[in-house]
Amino acid sequence: MNTASSPTPSLVNLTCPLPLTEKERIVLGHGAGGKLTAALIAELFQPAFHNPTLDRLDDQAVLALPAVSAGGRLALTTDSFVVTPIFFPGGDIGSLAVHGTVNDLAMGGARPLWLAAAFILEEGLAQADLRRIVASMAAAARAAGVEIVTGDTKVVNHGKGDQIFITTTGVGWVPEGVHLSSNQARPGDRILVSGTIGDHGMAILSQREGLAFEEPILSDSAALHTLAAAVIDAAGGHLRCLRDPTRGGLATALHEIAERSGVGMLLEEKHIPVRELVHSACELLGIDPLFVANEGKLVAIVAPEAAAAALAALRAHPLGENACLVGEVRSEHPGMLMLRTEVGGTRVLDTLFHEQLPRIC
Amino acid sequence: MNTASSPTPSLVNLTCPLPLTEKERIVLGHGAGGKLTAALIAELFQPAFHNPTLDRLDDQAVLALPAVSAGGRLALTTDSFVVTPIFFPGGDIGSLAVHGTVNDLAMGGARPLWLAAAFILEEGLAQADLRRIVASMAAAARAAGVEIVTGDTKVVNHGKGDQIFITTTGVGWVPEGVHLSSNQARPGDRILVSGTIGDHGMAILSQREGLAFEEPILSDSAALHTLAAAVIDAAGGHLRCLRDPTRGGLATALHEIAERSGVGMLLEEKHIPVRELVHSACELLGIDPLFVANEGKLVAIVAPEAAAAALAALRAHPLGENACLVGEVRSEHPGMLMLRTEVGGTRVLDTLFHEQLPRIC
Repeated sequence: MNTASSPTPSLVNLTCPLPLTEKERIVLGHGAGGKLTAALIAELFQPAFHNPTLDRLDDQAVLALPAVSAGGRLALTTDSFVVTPIFFPGGDIGSLAVHGTVNDLAMGGARPLWLAAAFILEEGLAQADLRRIVASMAAAARAAGVEIVTGDTKVVNHGKGDQIFITTTGVGWVPEGVHLSSNQARPGDRILVSGTIGDHGMAILSQREGLAFEEPILSDSAALHTLAAAVIDAAGGHLRCLRDPTRGGLATALHEIAERSGVGMLLEEKHIPVRELVHSACELLGIDPLFVANEGKLVAIVAPEAAAAALAALRAHPLGENACLVGEVRSEHPGMLMLRTEVGGTRVLDTLFHEQLPRIC
Repeated sequence: MNTASSPTPSLVNLTCPLPLTEKERIVLGHGAGGKLTAALIAELFQPAFHNPTLDRLDDQAVLALPAVSAGGRLALTTDSFVVTPIFFPGGDIGSLAVHGTVNDLAMGGARPLWLAAAFILEEGLAQADLRRIVASMAAAARAAGVEIVTGDTKVVNHGKGDQIFITTTGVGWVPEGVHLSSNQARPGDRILVSGTIGDHGMAILSQREGLAFEEPILSDSAALHTLAAAVIDAAGGHLRCLRDPTRGGLATALHEIAERSGVGMLLEEKHIPVRELVHSACELLGIDPLFVANEGKLVAIVAPEAAAAALAALRAHPLGENACLVGEVRSEHPGMLMLRTEVGGTRVLDTLFHEQLPRIC
């Protein structure tokens, strides 16, 4: 093999400036694996997310576990984010995609370590919007102490997607001795909520429907791993289960725990914290805040002897200052959720059949 | 707290049959986190994928590493699949989503362990199609020895997606001593390809364009982890890098390796295996098979002293029987790919700027 007889100009050093349109809008070529994909990675994703693992640009991240111990286990979670609108008061699809996945790790008792991020972009998406979303993801990941170590980008034809969908997958490490699961609630356990409910869903809905209140409703989107760690530390083996009540809200999250644990639950309506503004918006729209998504709240099921310590630990954290004890696990009515209303009656909180608020996350 | 005064009928034992339309088509409620989501998981995903981890139905999988050793490392990879059409000769979006992610793990030298699967469904998708895709994923995962341990489902409005997008994320374990990366190619290394190129891309394109040849072109979609293990075993520390030439094809994969390793490459056109039918289809459509996606082929860069052993190992495997030595790594023209054509000339193989074949995976 010999190329010496045909000298070739060193094309590799010539850079071809991208046409203006391809700097402004996403085109199909950005997902085709060639020069445009490489440019998108080099100019947009890598500067925002960069770390030694990602910078190798291999098709997989290879990672040394920082804390391998015989009894520890790996946590893995994935979520696609299809929220509309993609920018909303209190966050955007990028920060939400990081928080949502960090939180799913944290609810399993895991220390979040790494994220993978896969983007499905619609042809025509403004590159400025993508850049803003990616910056927001990078900031959220940095704040949560996780690295985005691998990713993927696909582009679909205009009209075959909706601006941007992001799938984040998280890997975390569950220390020895931590065993949280939705099948561990026992009669007598206390039900704690870390703050006001319904903020995220009503922020999205208000924005989507163009509702103007005296002040905007802000999403509560936040990374809950340090809050989760605080309650795990405080309650130790008395903590049964953590859950972030996202899609379907508090009622759906508790219903799932009740069903999987084969227990009933009784909630006290008057103890469930709801922001005044969210309450008004819900009334106006005929929506029950118990079924509205949260993205920065957790539910903790705790044995009675550790409930006070767990509540104190939540309240001592900036993200848990409005934490409340909202109810109790019961042996009656297994798989069901009962609500004692403010006027003293008791009613069944069934899960929703159809969507109340689609595309909220 | 006391509910004894208001006895409640045991609603939990009543099952409400879903209306016919919701059995036949995906509706927004299937992604809203309530009853319909639960039914979709219980009736469709869980029976197909079931394993003890997934069956816990928590928001995260918690996993004991089967082979934690001090020098081993974790591999993580993610890919969104947006291929159209979703069913094609030789596979479908489901099997492709498993193979693609298993292969990205295998190319890093990892033993594939677990997959996470996130679905973005378009409202109106036929449930029968989803069921067929999920069955195909489950079969592909079983065949590859990986478990689908966690997942997510979102539904977007009709016209805001394209039937189904699947994001699979894979976790694997890289044994001590295996260090493969695209920055390790050295002058003198040999370039091996495990079989005929261009099959997947031309299968998709023929189907999409309604081209009828005397026989259908089949996708080569396959899990390559055992083939990768065979070449790793045979070449040991002499193996520099493995890569599956998907989007952008063989030329793009090699170009990336050349760029990251700071080396040139010379390919011999006459040694590059292309099926007769694929060759004809490419000629007809004016497409270069070197840039067409593969989903069941690998490229291995191997030090010269191990090239024969690596080639023999590939050829001894059912998925590598057409393996060939197709070229050599050179010090000249770093970052560039040269092709010695069948007639004896030499030309530069540049990467593609725009897409040749969008939405191929």
